[in-house]
Amino acid sequence: MIFQTCFTVDTPGRGSLPIVRQINARLAESGISTGMCLIFVHHTSASLMLCENADPEVRSDLERFMQRLAPDGDPLFHHVDEGPDDMPAHVRSMLTGNALTVPVSGGHCDLGVWQGVYLWEHRTSAHRRKVSVTLCGE
Amino acid sequence: MIFQTCFTVDTPGRGSLPIVRQINARLAESGISTGMCLIFVHHTSASLMLCENADPEVRSDLERFMQRLAPDGDPLFHHVDEGPDDMPAHVRSMLTGNALTVPVSGGHCDLGVWQGVYLWEHRTSAHRRKVSVTLCGE
Amino acid sequence: MIFQTCFTVDTPGRGSLPIVRQINARLAESGISTGMCLIFVHHTSASLMLCENADPEVRSDLERFMQRLAPDGDPLFHHVDEGPDDMPAHVRSMLTGNALTVPVSGGHCDLGVWQGVYLWEHRTSAHRRKVSVTLCGE
Repeated sequence: MIFQTCFTVDTPGRGSLPIVRQINARLAESGISTGMCLIFVHHTSASLMLCENADPEVRSDLERFMQRLAPDGDPLFHHVDEGPDDMPAHVRSMLTGNALTVPVSGGHCDLGVWQGVYLWEHRTSAHRRKVSVTLCGE
Repeated sequence: MIFQTCFTVDTPGRGSLPIVRQINARLAESGISTGMCLIFVHHTSASLMLCENADPEVRSDLERFMQRLAPDGDPLFHHVDEGPDDMPAHVRSMLTGNALTVPVSGGHCDLGVWQGVYLWEHRTSAHRRKVSVTLCGE
Repeated sequence: MIFQTCFTVDTPGRGSLPIVRQINARLAESGISTGMCLIFVHHTSASLMLCENADPEVRSDLERFMQRLAPDGDPLFHHVDEGPDDMPAHVRSMLTGNALTVPVSGGHCDLGVWQGVYLWEHRTSAHRRKVSVTLCGE
């Protein structure tokens, strides 16, 4: 059985937001109990991340790591028309990925105890992001 | 319903090539309208990337970023028998991934307006690369 | 058809371990011949990697690359309560991914000749890691 739907997330600018609750809500609608769930972000300057959900400092450290790796305004980049944070956003997106598949068990995302799924906005300004959910299971 | 096929891409050496057209052609053959599409590169020195499809400078900036992160001939690497671009190719492949799953909707890959799927050749010389497509849907 | 199971891997600390044999054994149990196999690590400081399976020096070079990119004890990180290798482990996990989907063909993982699937332990001490396998196919 296949079930497909989507939702939008309004981000306040750079940073990561938990989205497991929204995904589990779609799973409940689908009636699927066991299978796989493809989460997909339809953009190239926002991405998905599985990350520790206990200490929020882990995510701010990851943010800081990315800022060191590909700083805003990095003179390496030629594509600057969309602002100093645009190419760094594409780099971050490329490194973390726009597609994430998680197992589904007992009707919800079967994550580890400390795992959360986050939508990671990489642009510094607020954006509306489309996330789709495709379920395959029974 | 499951549908599986593969195709090859002849790359002229390092750089990224759009492959969405080839994938959508396989999707049309399959008759699948809604589901998920696993794209898989059967190599460890080429990979897949979702990237902006508007300004090609974005992709050359990403190339430049990778070259800074893991330069050819980097003295860090011990595995040098296959040439100075081989370990950097493995690093790039590891960071971007050989497997990519995208949602299928209306019989084609359901990407964002600015998203393209690219096969990224990381070796400096020309190669023939095998890409498989596995579809699950209805 | 959906088949789901899991197994554990006892790691001796940092380093990568081949797990294709364990996955192919689960595939044989499932009776699935063609489809896709989602491998998922239920942790945020261990991850999955597709990598060359010929020269083990490739994997030690990748280890060395990660150590340069996010060294243990890096003063960039604020989250240090779990030890100097914890944030670097989260960085490595974020960059390489906890979920990997591979095609299934002829009843086994359809990898390239030189591709292996590895569980990558990023913590320096020994850990027991849960890996789940979700198969969708026929």
